[in-house]
Amino acid sequence: MKAEIISVGTELLVGQITNTNAKYLARRLNDFGVDVYYQTTVGDNLTRLVDVLKAASDRVDFIVLTGGLGPTEDDLTREALSHFTGRPLVRDQTAEARIRAFFERLNQPMTENNLRQAERPDGSYPLPNDIGLAIGWVLELSSTKLVMALPGPPRELQTMFERYGRAYIQERLPQVSPLISRYLHFAGIGESQLATRLAPLIQKQTDPTIALYASVGEVTVRLSTRAAREREAQVKLQPVMDAVIASAPEFYYGEGESLTLAQVLIERLTRRQETLALIESCTGGLIADTLIAVPGASAVVRLGVIPYQTLMKAKVLGIDAEKLSEQGAVSAWTAERMAESGRSLAVADWALATTCVAGPTMQDGQPVGRAYIGLAHNDAVFASEHTVSGDRQTIRERVMRLALFQLWRAMLKKSND
Amino acid sequence: MKAEIISVGTELLVGQITNTNAKYLARRLNDFGVDVYYQTTVGDNLTRLVDVLKAASDRVDFIVLTGGLGPTEDDLTREALSHFTGRPLVRDQTAEARIRAFFERLNQPMTENNLRQAERPDGSYPLPNDIGLAIGWVLELSSTKLVMALPGPPRELQTMFERYGRAYIQERLPQVSPLISRYLHFAGIGESQLATRLAPLIQKQTDPTIALYASVGEVTVRLSTRAAREREAQVKLQPVMDAVIASAPEFYYGEGESLTLAQVLIERLTRRQETLALIESCTGGLIADTLIAVPGASAVVRLGVIPYQTLMKAKVLGIDAEKLSEQGAVSAWTAERMAESGRSLAVADWALATTCVAGPTMQDGQPVGRAYIGLAHNDAVFASEHTVSGDRQTIRERVMRLALFQLWRAMLKKSND
Repeated sequence: MKAEIISVGTELLVGQITNTNAKYLARRLNDFGVDVYYQTTVGDNLTRLVDVLKAASDRVDFIVLTGGLGPTEDDLTREALSHFTGRPLVRDQTAEARIRAFFERLNQPMTENNLRQAERPDGSYPLPNDIGLAIGWVLELSSTKLVMALPGPPRELQTMFERYGRAYIQERLPQVSPLISRYLHFAGIGESQLATRLAPLIQKQTDPTIALYASVGEVTVRLSTRAAREREAQVKLQPVMDAVIASAPEFYYGEGESLTLAQVLIERLTRRQETLALIESCTGGLIADTLIAVPGASAVVRLGVIPYQTLMKAKVLGIDAEKLSEQGAVSAWTAERMAESGRSLAVADWALATTCVAGPTMQDGQPVGRAYIGLAHNDAVFASEHTVSGDRQTIRERVMRLALFQLWRAMLKKSND
Repeated sequence: MKAEIISVGTELLVGQITNTNAKYLARRLNDFGVDVYYQTTVGDNLTRLVDVLKAASDRVDFIVLTGGLGPTEDDLTREALSHFTGRPLVRDQTAEARIRAFFERLNQPMTENNLRQAERPDGSYPLPNDIGLAIGWVLELSSTKLVMALPGPPRELQTMFERYGRAYIQERLPQVSPLISRYLHFAGIGESQLATRLAPLIQKQTDPTIALYASVGEVTVRLSTRAAREREAQVKLQPVMDAVIASAPEFYYGEGESLTLAQVLIERLTRRQETLALIESCTGGLIADTLIAVPGASAVVRLGVIPYQTLMKAKVLGIDAEKLSEQGAVSAWTAERMAESGRSLAVADWALATTCVAGPTMQDGQPVGRAYIGLAHNDAVFASEHTVSGDRQTIRERVMRLALFQLWRAMLKKSND
């Protein structure tokens, strides 16, 4: 089935906002076996909207509209559909009752305009809006041509699509199985390095498909296959998952679409009832912030210290000032002392420390991008040296990811002891 | 002049990436007086690409293409243009020399495919690519119809457009003046509150136009007018800028498209040669990270302490443990003690402290969203109470913005003393 996504809204057309709905819908339609051939964006203009609908109905079987379902005169998707199909608009009773109840609850006057949001073309199949006021719908133009209309606000669109729209599509297209995916996360290894290790696997692999997605300091491998049932997919996915993990086991940290290394660390510390202290120089709060963003962090993250100016490393952490100036603020020695003192100050099981040159200029004879990560656990302490590239923010983020990775590796090693 | 933006690439069509190029181009074309009527996305398919070009040339005067200029067989924008116009592709000498030099410098073999990136339709006007290999171009289909082709990678597209594409447009459209804008930044006030204050102004104002953009904890007001010259625009913009600022002077912190409150604070501290300590509980490094992201922060941000667990507030900051448990970790008293001790520990001029309930559950009898911000300067210390809404991350970010705003207000007051 060939589809076209039509996004309606002048705010998109003039570049005021990014069209994230088109991306979302394209991905989801593709997941359900619908081929998106075109995406079109058009403004709040009746003539052009009707023209675009006409062109789309000539070239695809399935039109998905988003936007233009608001209460104002500018919202023309309903009218355009009515013009284009010759069908009158009717008021959906359930949607009308919802709108009236909404304004009563708020104790605000409802205008006639608000009831426009309850209208849909005669003969259409309603798609309820559980978190907003505008009703959506599906209309069959013929036995082989469909139009689906969804609201513009992303949360409303996604909720309506996931709860009602996708069921309609899956019923209409029972022959196509949905795409089922697994997300494997790697840290501490670059995208091209991982791609090289996976190359033999990728070359001979057609189903499940293997795709790599890189973000700063991390790589995610997505494995996808079409299957009617989760269990059937699992049988196809498991051996490939195993093979992918086996090609870089030392860098693999977990599976799940929205899993993060910070979550894995907080969960592991919680399970082991261990605590953590963070001593950040160049990352300046980025590690603490990333970990503390995870609910439950307060049970395990005990203390953060950002001794940003060198004299603070001596004053707050009690590092020997003379030796510090001898070794340099950005050095393995200093990273070790930071971890050691931080752990002891917090009486924590683990301490993670960073010191690096984030730029824009070099420091203490060290080049931009040079980083030392210190790690203390019980009485052991060690530091590793790294060189990362990028601008100030990218360097800070890469060092943050590397530090989380070092801690994760050390904890893994500890639990294997 | 009516325009259509055509984005070429299967990765866009299947929802693998978000189309930020369309937004960027739409906004910039609009800035230069070009009306974008349609945006279309099509995959790496010759027939469909030619069809889309044909449809666009029937309905607009100016087609802007982005993507499909890579070196592989999948990159078909050049071929599609050639098919559509009947013009052969020629090799641009300058672009070819650049590509050859690039591979020589890398000491890597160049394939014939790479030279495809130097091709452009015969009779086209070249647009150099200063940071990538694919050349762009403008082709006049007739005296009133233009096609511009730009590369897909956003940085290449933007550099090419800003350095060469926009000059071409401005030369072709001398009658249209560019849009010149001013961005006024406000913090500590909500969007609807500011909109209410500005309502009388917005209602009577048509040129310059006034638009509000809200982000978490901040509101930006954009004033725009068309003018041939900066000076001419300034004359129109200044009185409206003054009026906008005068309607909420206590919340206004500066002007400039990419200005942030963190920048303003770092600049002001630097100018005054004053230092800052940060003591963050619920914001957990977010304030430090936001300030340290600004180059030059190391001269003024002296220390950050994240006494995340309550016992650390006593141990590291020396706050009276008994009183702390009596007053509660989330209280005005504790916020004041945190600021006071942090300032004294760092021997800084200013200290900013946060303690709040970020959720997901309430704490010490305080509801989710309750926040206290402590501020110490010399021997003075005070705390303010706030209640913010949102999920865990939004609450943390709002408290961070509020804290920066409190510091800014206090510094402003100090400099007026």
